[in-house]
Amino acid sequence: MPELRQNEATREWVIIATERAKRPEEFRSKEQKKPLPETKTDCVFCAGSENKTPAETFRIGGIGREWKVRTVLNKFAALSKSSGVVVSDSGIFRKMTGYGYHEVIVETPRHNAVTALLSESEVADILRAYKNRYLFMEQDEEIDDIIIFKNHGSAAGTSLEHPHSQIVATPVVPHQVRNRIDIAITYYDDHHECLYCKILRDELKEGTRIIAETEHFVCFTPFAALTPFHTWIYPKRHSSNYGRITDAELVDLSKILRLSLGKFYFGLNDPDFNYVIRSAPTDARDASYFHWYLSLIPRLTKSAGFELGSGMFINVSIPEENAKFLREVVIS
Amino acid sequence: MPELRQNEATREWVIIATERAKRPEEFRSKEQKKPLPETKTDCVFCAGSENKTPAETFRIGGIGREWKVRTVLNKFAALSKSSGVVVSDSGIFRKMTGYGYHEVIVETPRHNAVTALLSESEVADILRAYKNRYLFMEQDEEIDDIIIFKNHGSAAGTSLEHPHSQIVATPVVPHQVRNRIDIAITYYDDHHECLYCKILRDELKEGTRIIAETEHFVCFTPFAALTPFHTWIYPKRHSSNYGRITDAELVDLSKILRLSLGKFYFGLNDPDFNYVIRSAPTDARDASYFHWYLSLIPRLTKSAGFELGSGMFINVSIPEENAKFLREVVIS
Repeated sequence: MPELRQNEATREWVIIATERAKRPEEFRSKEQKKPLPETKTDCVFCAGSENKTPAETFRIGGIGREWKVRTVLNKFAALSKSSGVVVSDSGIFRKMTGYGYHEVIVETPRHNAVTALLSESEVADILRAYKNRYLFMEQDEEIDDIIIFKNHGSAAGTSLEHPHSQIVATPVVPHQVRNRIDIAITYYDDHHECLYCKILRDELKEGTRIIAETEHFVCFTPFAALTPFHTWIYPKRHSSNYGRITDAELVDLSKILRLSLGKFYFGLNDPDFNYVIRSAPTDARDASYFHWYLSLIPRLTKSAGFELGSGMFINVSIPEENAKFLREVVIS
Repeated sequence: MPELRQNEATREWVIIATERAKRPEEFRSKEQKKPLPETKTDCVFCAGSENKTPAETFRIGGIGREWKVRTVLNKFAALSKSSGVVVSDSGIFRKMTGYGYHEVIVETPRHNAVTALLSESEVADILRAYKNRYLFMEQDEEIDDIIIFKNHGSAAGTSLEHPHSQIVATPVVPHQVRNRIDIAITYYDDHHECLYCKILRDELKEGTRIIAETEHFVCFTPFAALTPFHTWIYPKRHSSNYGRITDAELVDLSKILRLSLGKFYFGLNDPDFNYVIRSAPTDARDASYFHWYLSLIPRLTKSAGFELGSGMFINVSIPEENAKFLREVVIS
């Protein structure tokens, strides 16, 4: 019979729809993505088109077209620094100027590169660029929250083929984040321990949902995975935000992230996916109660009216089966 | 420059991305849905296939195949009554048996009918079936929340062509709903008034986001619409749950729902959409602080990493422009 499981971090229930659950291999993408050229003349992110992007904010590598990773302002920025933060209330309606940062991390000069197939040192450079931009945006006192994310494929909301990630810094703490913080604080107050450290310890003890483990990180399927193959990568060392990652951890994260993306790429045939690095709001940057982590969400199913109306998800797969499937995918 | 707007009901901020906002007509679907037959032999919801569905729970119309609306158990139920409610904790992991109800409302015997093009009395019959099933499920003391919803088209998460809606009754209050309740209670305690009644009054006064108004209902674009053409239909009379709708209101709702769906159908060329009827949890069935309403969400854009990671949405359209566009779509 169906089962409800509670996500400890959000207190939201997920329905594990056992009656219509699919086997892990049924989620393998049937569509073959079309091969891309190494350079595309109309792509502003390709090597040689550096002067076609908005201002560059950071780069790793050499001058001219000899870069490895570049970060640039987003041409269609969701938030910008064109004015200060001004809040205005009109009766019940509240608005705020769209102050903030929105940058693109161009992950590689090659149009046809696939993040999962890059070398560990190439992935480490992307993660270094994230850290640089995170630390830069964090210095702005108007900024309350910083979200790093990647959209891969059209089902994940991107039409751009060239491998890229994004970073957005907002002048508010999203209510969803505030809600998680409240839950984490309550847990900390009750147990004098970070909720996420506890989740990690219990997942390691249980073992059935672990996908991979490295010196500093653990990749696993959450007990209450929202969707098929929903995956978390947690750092073992307690730290509330990505900006505090050490270089040794960063190199190790490049290993486990590349491995995890590779397991998706080979095991599920390059599915569309999003990943997100969640950190504590900047005001809680050294909080004992919150733990940064990376959440990887392959877009294998679509949310429907039930999800929109309740906030609960129906997961048509068994988390333990999916974890086992991914654990057994071998990356050369 | 971009603007943030706060959704008063959830306290979540939405980014109105003015820099890349599209004009209303740009959201018009370019795809022409393929014509369907009036009856399809392998469709279990068509007239003549009554014996192929799981048990019928309610019908409007005559015997045999002479029905207008039928409700049946869902063959792939997300929740079921095969056991009682049992909660079990194992360390930090909490699960519950998947007790509950999941029924399908078959809206019409005709495979090729379109809800937007039904007559008002046909739509009223669908709404009567919703009420019947709502009141039935509400009697079960194990049930905490009841969600009525419709998925139209593949982007809205359905592969079934035959017009249908669903109703799910859960043994928990979804945390997302609990969060809205908390916000509504705080507003009520501060103002001795329902937050939603206040929103409705202010929207009517402002006027720029109103799409249509009938004797008992108002259809409008929320000030902080999450996505392009996100639409709310509010009852004017304060009532916390759909089960308390009067017959006069139900007839009037069929008018404004048909009109609203028609404006989408003709103005945006039959886009995929979800709608959801949100009610207070059953324990708060006569609450002064919560107001039931219908939320209509055309699936014109995809959520991406930013939305998944922050809970905030980026709306690439201007709510007032979309409301004006829909206001001017004339339905014959």
